Amino acid sequence: MLKVVKIGGNIVDNPEKLERFLADFASLEGPKILVHGGGKVATTISRALGVEARMIDGRRVTDEQTLRIVTMVYAGVINKSIVAALQSHGCNAVGLSGADGRFVLSRRRSPVPVDYGFVGDPTGVNVELARALFDRGATIVVAPITFDPTDGSLLNTNADTVASAIAVAMSASGPTELVYCFEKRGVLGDVEDEDSVIQCIDKVLYESLKASGAIFEGMLPKLDNAFRAIDLGVSSVVICSAENIASQGYGGTRITL
Amino acid sequence: MLKVVKIGGNIVDNPEKLERFLADFASLEGPKILVHGGGKVATTISRALGVEARMIDGRRVTDEQTLRIVTMVYAGVINKSIVAALQSHGCNAVGLSGADGRFVLSRRRSPVPVDYGFVGDPTGVNVELARALFDRGATIVVAPITFDPTDGSLLNTNADTVASAIAVAMSASGPTELVYCFEKRGVLGDVEDEDSVIQCIDKVLYESLKASGAIFEGMLPKLDNAFRAIDLGVSSVVICSAENIASQGYGGTRITL
Repeated sequence: MLKVVKIGGNIVDNPEKLERFLADFASLEGPKILVHGGGKVATTISRALGVEARMIDGRRVTDEQTLRIVTMVYAGVINKSIVAALQSHGCNAVGLSGADGRFVLSRRRSPVPVDYGFVGDPTGVNVELARALFDRGATIVVAPITFDPTDGSLLNTNADTVASAIAVAMSASGPTELVYCFEKRGVLGDVEDEDSVIQCIDKVLYESLKASGAIFEGMLPKLDNAFRAIDLGVSSVVICSAENIASQGYGGTRITL
Repeated sequence: MLKVVKIGGNIVDNPEKLERFLADFASLEGPKILVHGGGKVATTISRALGVEARMIDGRRVTDEQTLRIVTMVYAGVINKSIVAALQSHGCNAVGLSGADGRFVLSRRRSPVPVDYGFVGDPTGVNVELARALFDRGATIVVAPITFDPTDGSLLNTNADTVASAIAVAMSASGPTELVYCFEKRGVLGDVEDEDSVIQCIDKVLYESLKASGAIFEGMLPKLDNAFRAIDLGVSSVVICSAENIASQGYGGTRITL
């Protein structure tokens, strides 16, 4: 089964955790795609270059300078460092942005009601390119910078959404699983208790956990992406710790219909 | 015939020239590889980040921080901007660093007598990966960051040398031409006279031009790479203006045995 694995910025920012994760990821059998988030490097560099982060409702606006910086950091140093590390572990990685071979096309988000700038949502994935690379034994490493063919611009895109879009598209040509790896062991029933991992969430439970306030903020878009993937044909969706990527079943939280 | 085209930093730094070049390059028929240089962005960013450029005998030393910056700039924003622009012109570009699919392997230059840091010279090119991408109608865009498999590090590599190494490797599986594009119309017999383009240089003429001092500095390594390519089986090597990439025969200076 094809694995689409996403690692968050907190892992990317921690060299030891990242190295351990990549060694484990490299050891996974079969075709696989790794989608990585951004981490804090882009913010550090923006500050050093005097580019002020502009936020609307707590969300960053991607102006032209910020787009250049995230393209540098995500598709440049993070993507290529991960590719080099995987190559060192004997995993034949090829790094792609969404523009490369039109791997992930997107559409710029409507500026109404809020203009977040150069930010887009995926509209298509080049499944044939992925299959051709898998046929050569390659593993794909995806930076969350996508390509809007309507005006030729690169767009900053949420990495969870990119991973979900890739998993959904790939599932049309064969069974696919989607694994969201982050710094916690799974979706927690009690955010204060690391041991309160919920083993399985269906939509009914999700609605009740949202209603009770047990799940909130950053977890909501991740779970929305997870449910969207399972709704659209992805065989298995798991949210787990990056430390468990090589363990049977990943531990963590399984999403079910 | 496969074309391997290299554009220098002066073109990369000039948005209008770069855009015109990319439109012309996109229109070229048949399989093609574009290798791009770095330009001044890396220097600007290094300064902003407070990373002092350390020079030995006029050559930059690539320390660890500088390596991260050139990886960001070359493999990130420059490579992906070029890929996006080519995609807009209907050219199905895929950007690669040397680490991606081990496309360009290298070896760190000996620290004796001078330690230039994370700098390497090409040792191998993944011809099969290029052929597989060409079979899918893709054009390859190469950032001059290579991969040393002995210790897994990324290495900063001269873009002229990368282009020459790729052309030589590809020529083993079919006729290949190498085109060095820069801001002048070719190799000038008189550096003060833009019209003094030498149409054809063989080794005898090259030695006499060096001896007379007509050719010097930056032109020497470019010509050394050009002669190395033609010596090692590349069918045709031309040094010309980026403005002439779409014109018959490219104008410029042809290198002959």
